[in-house]
Amino acid sequence: MELTTFLEIAPESDFSIHNLPYGVFKPRIGGAPRVGVAIGADALDLSVLHEAGFFNQTVFASHNVFNNSSLNAFIRLGRDAWRETRTIVQKLLSDDVADLRDNAILRDAALIPQSRIEMLLPVEIGDYTDFYSSYHHAHNVGTMLRGAENALMPNWKHLPVAYHGRASSVVVSGTNFSRPRGQIQPSDANEPIFSPTRSLDFELEMGFFIGAENALGEPIPIERADEFMFGMVLVNDWSARDIQAWEYQPLGPFLAKNFCTSISPWVVTFDALEPFKKPLPAQDPKPLAYLARENDWAYDIELEVSLQSATMDAPHVITRSNFQNLYWSMNQQLAHHTVNGCNVRVGDLLASGTISGAEKFSRGSMLELTWRGKEPLQLPNGETRRFLDDGDVVTMRAWGAKDGVRVGFGEVRGKALSAQSLS
Amino acid sequence: MELTTFLEIAPESDFSIHNLPYGVFKPRIGGAPRVGVAIGADALDLSVLHEAGFFNQTVFASHNVFNNSSLNAFIRLGRDAWRETRTIVQKLLSDDVADLRDNAILRDAALIPQSRIEMLLPVEIGDYTDFYSSYHHAHNVGTMLRGAENALMPNWKHLPVAYHGRASSVVVSGTNFSRPRGQIQPSDANEPIFSPTRSLDFELEMGFFIGAENALGEPIPIERADEFMFGMVLVNDWSARDIQAWEYQPLGPFLAKNFCTSISPWVVTFDALEPFKKPLPAQDPKPLAYLARENDWAYDIELEVSLQSATMDAPHVITRSNFQNLYWSMNQQLAHHTVNGCNVRVGDLLASGTISGAEKFSRGSMLELTWRGKEPLQLPNGETRRFLDDGDVVTMRAWGAKDGVRVGFGEVRGKALSAQSLS
Repeated sequence: MELTTFLEIAPESDFSIHNLPYGVFKPRIGGAPRVGVAIGADALDLSVLHEAGFFNQTVFASHNVFNNSSLNAFIRLGRDAWRETRTIVQKLLSDDVADLRDNAILRDAALIPQSRIEMLLPVEIGDYTDFYSSYHHAHNVGTMLRGAENALMPNWKHLPVAYHGRASSVVVSGTNFSRPRGQIQPSDANEPIFSPTRSLDFELEMGFFIGAENALGEPIPIERADEFMFGMVLVNDWSARDIQAWEYQPLGPFLAKNFCTSISPWVVTFDALEPFKKPLPAQDPKPLAYLARENDWAYDIELEVSLQSATMDAPHVITRSNFQNLYWSMNQQLAHHTVNGCNVRVGDLLASGTISGAEKFSRGSMLELTWRGKEPLQLPNGETRRFLDDGDVVTMRAWGAKDGVRVGFGEVRGKALSAQSLS
Repeated sequence: MELTTFLEIAPESDFSIHNLPYGVFKPRIGGAPRVGVAIGADALDLSVLHEAGFFNQTVFASHNVFNNSSLNAFIRLGRDAWRETRTIVQKLLSDDVADLRDNAILRDAALIPQSRIEMLLPVEIGDYTDFYSSYHHAHNVGTMLRGAENALMPNWKHLPVAYHGRASSVVVSGTNFSRPRGQIQPSDANEPIFSPTRSLDFELEMGFFIGAENALGEPIPIERADEFMFGMVLVNDWSARDIQAWEYQPLGPFLAKNFCTSISPWVVTFDALEPFKKPLPAQDPKPLAYLARENDWAYDIELEVSLQSATMDAPHVITRSNFQNLYWSMNQQLAHHTVNGCNVRVGDLLASGTISGAEKFSRGSMLELTWRGKEPLQLPNGETRRFLDDGDVVTMRAWGAKDGVRVGFGEVRGKALSAQSLS
């Protein structure tokens, strides 16, 4: 299908008419939060389109779900409604449909430059789960801790390892945070000390939001798993490695992770990602039946992390990876998560874990890039980094590109501020 | 203060006029959820009292926060409102106040026998955190896994170890659940298999709800921690030990725990627990400053677990423990949880971890009681148990009793049903 819009959209824009990701925003000057769609450099205000009657033929005609501070009410409507909305919006933006194109007043009301809006957390997140699904990430971390022979735990290739994260501290891109303090056990000390973390890190991840719910006690079969997914975002799972090393035995990471997790503001739907589907590579050993889906898939989504210190003029790319570097599929993650009867709810976030590739330049964390600080990263202005310094800005980007179609995620960005003094 | 009520309350009732715990219920026949207080064998419907004008002098006079399916709106009002409500209710129930005592129509409307209501989950839980704060539990588990010499991890006495749990699968007492399935690695198999768990367990815990919020990045100092707590419940953190053993490395328990967590329906306030305060025993080593509070405290709350199999006529007590068996205080737990800037929100649940005492009969899980199945439990009808069987009902009770004042938690009860066939 050849789709073109009457809007001028830069060819390198993440937000082509093929994308149409959902987000929640408010105007920088005045106005309540509402739901919109990113298109080029603009946001299209869906609450205005709803008021103008463009959703009168839908089941939610009488309920302006876009007049909301989160996507949850819209997501709850279900997949048919998401698709109907996508079709309506795509049509309104196409250059052979007059309704929006030729209505200057409506265009003025509904299309707002992204520079004039503030993006909000798009989804009210119930539970946040973080997987550990990149082979190379797990192998790198395991090698540093236990040596290459014992790098992977015996369970790793049998199930998508995961743990529960903290939902309250998931923030939208652009939210800065203070370097966390906590207990660390320096190698030259006999007792743990209380200190700002000395090994602040990022983790390059992606995540998907739950779009439909299962009842407690009723697993989601892998053949239907994708029906329970709404869309994807970039995730930066900020980490404090020294806090983690001291606290994580035997129940896993806690304060090392829950001080801040950043996500990108625009939720890209799976309909938009369809062109980038790729077969999931064969797994060895073959997974158990509840994790096996014929023709299971991944997505060819390119990933990039850049770092800009306080003294640098521009961001510097330090990692390039790809979503296909994950060993476990999202279908497998969700089937595993619910196989014991655990229920998922609309708005739950399931993240991938750090997405590292085989090459050094594709590692998704400072821990791996600098091999625990042993091989410091060289920045173009002469600075070096073992971990993140105060003032460092980390920006992650993600996009699919194929046959002239580009579907991007925008960015997730955050700055580490110095540790606050305690009150 | 001598407090007596015009209602007839059995001396062994958990719900004396000194208690007044909050819960959410709906009549078994008709009627929407509303907030009430347990008193003797009745529930006092606070939404009716609000309509009748008894809260007209409060800041929430114009907003019937009790007309709600959770306590969250009420909790959000803050500690002054909780205390004002407690004072008003205690006065209305006392035998020298006529308003309720002599108003038969109001009594009929506001007092409902607990046998005629269904208790609902009292709180909408944002995040659920589970600690690991009982020395004897951690020591027992560690001894089984690593031997008595290495029972405790080096961090255990320095910080209250915790992990994130799953909020979606927290259910109210009386909710039964199916035995979870999952991957287990039997000792006689080379590969993991998919099976209903063979080692279903309970964990005797208590938990507290967050009553006030901190901003992300702003730790709650331990001196003020108790101001952020609303009240307590019993928690049964059902566990599948074989799933746990196979999955938990390196990120902690996941599917072994998130299939079901049961809580008691009535939330007991800290004002009601005041008579049962006890000094927290001295800790060695001395905790770091952010975990040190002068005159920190515990509560003398007795705990009891009973088991009733499908063929038994009555529950049989298998464990007696006490909340004082916890090494770390709730103030320490909350101060630790937020010291890195992690934010807590109204309705978050922080549970203690299994509360085991020093004696064998005070162990808070089947894992410990039967020492991993090696010393099966003898039931009075001749049955034995290594772990829980289908049809077993586990009931936990908790209460404080002192100088004729009894403040109890009622019970948290759940039955393990057989594993469901997969759809």
